[in-house]
Amino acid sequence: MTIETAILADGLQDRSRWRTNERCPVVKALELIGTRSAMLIIREAYYGTTRFDDFTARVEITEAVASTRLRELTECGLLSKQPYREPGQRTRYEYRLTEMGRDLAPVVIGLYQWGAKYLSPGGRPPLALTHDDCGAAVAAEVRCAQGHEVALDELVIGPIPAAEPGEHSR
Amino acid sequence: MTIETAILADGLQDRSRWRTNERCPVVKALELIGTRSAMLIIREAYYGTTRFDDFTARVEITEAVASTRLRELTECGLLSKQPYREPGQRTRYEYRLTEMGRDLAPVVIGLYQWGAKYLSPGGRPPLALTHDDCGAAVAAEVRCAQGHEVALDELVIGPIPAAEPGEHSR
Repeated sequence: MTIETAILADGLQDRSRWRTNERCPVVKALELIGTRSAMLIIREAYYGTTRFDDFTARVEITEAVASTRLRELTECGLLSKQPYREPGQRTRYEYRLTEMGRDLAPVVIGLYQWGAKYLSPGGRPPLALTHDDCGAAVAAEVRCAQGHEVALDELVIGPIPAAEPGEHSR
Repeated sequence: MTIETAILADGLQDRSRWRTNERCPVVKALELIGTRSAMLIIREAYYGTTRFDDFTARVEITEAVASTRLRELTECGLLSKQPYREPGQRTRYEYRLTEMGRDLAPVVIGLYQWGAKYLSPGGRPPLALTHDDCGAAVAAEVRCAQGHEVALDELVIGPIPAAEPGEHSR
């Protein structure tokens, strides 16, 4: 039977001898954006939504949830809170994507295409994602720095050697 | 001020006139794998974990949660439940990744690299992801079918024209 999983290397093969939860970046990421409302607020920010009332309406959450979530996402750096003022109104705030927020794009687009492929009627998503420059369809992909697409069974997971003081290579 | 968001096209520019939650693939995806335990079970399956006790121990969840989550992930098609039997033991079941489960790789790897970049001490993840064929570092990226990397402000989001019976192009 083929086992199409990643390849564990260099002492990780015996999974009973290591665990990752404590330092796992996936766990840390989910602590910040692991709620439905956080992920959908980031989706909305990608669409260009910046204002409290628009987040509340489009994500379909209560003002209390929107307020908590926008504060959390601002505090941890995915959004930046900036004042704006319309004529005759008091100062309000809008929430703009930071680089940290934009860097979640592979995750959000990955969820979009996976949901579209497996969970949308006829595999047909409601919106098309295309590249402005060339018009081709856009997807989240797993690739290496050499540009190869990397299937799960070509992915090697290994330990990172601890850096020692003054050490530049090994 | 630059606004680095996606580009809304063809009638979507006025966000007050459309909403996506009801049909949004991100919403549908999060309904299945939007819990911490579901995402970490898939992470474990990528590492090669297949057995109930190993999922429970490595994800650090109770047997009740593991049982519920593995049943849900099997029912919705991310894992396939298969019998195995060790000598002198009763038949047990293991949980193997399906194509649907493997197709979440951009999401899980995207969460990993984002967590590593922004939330790990020194931006240093605990494990290295490399390509078996060439040894280069692996990442989740947003690309178009022409192979270009697509920044968020180069991403065009537009409606998909409804297919009509007998219509082959438009």
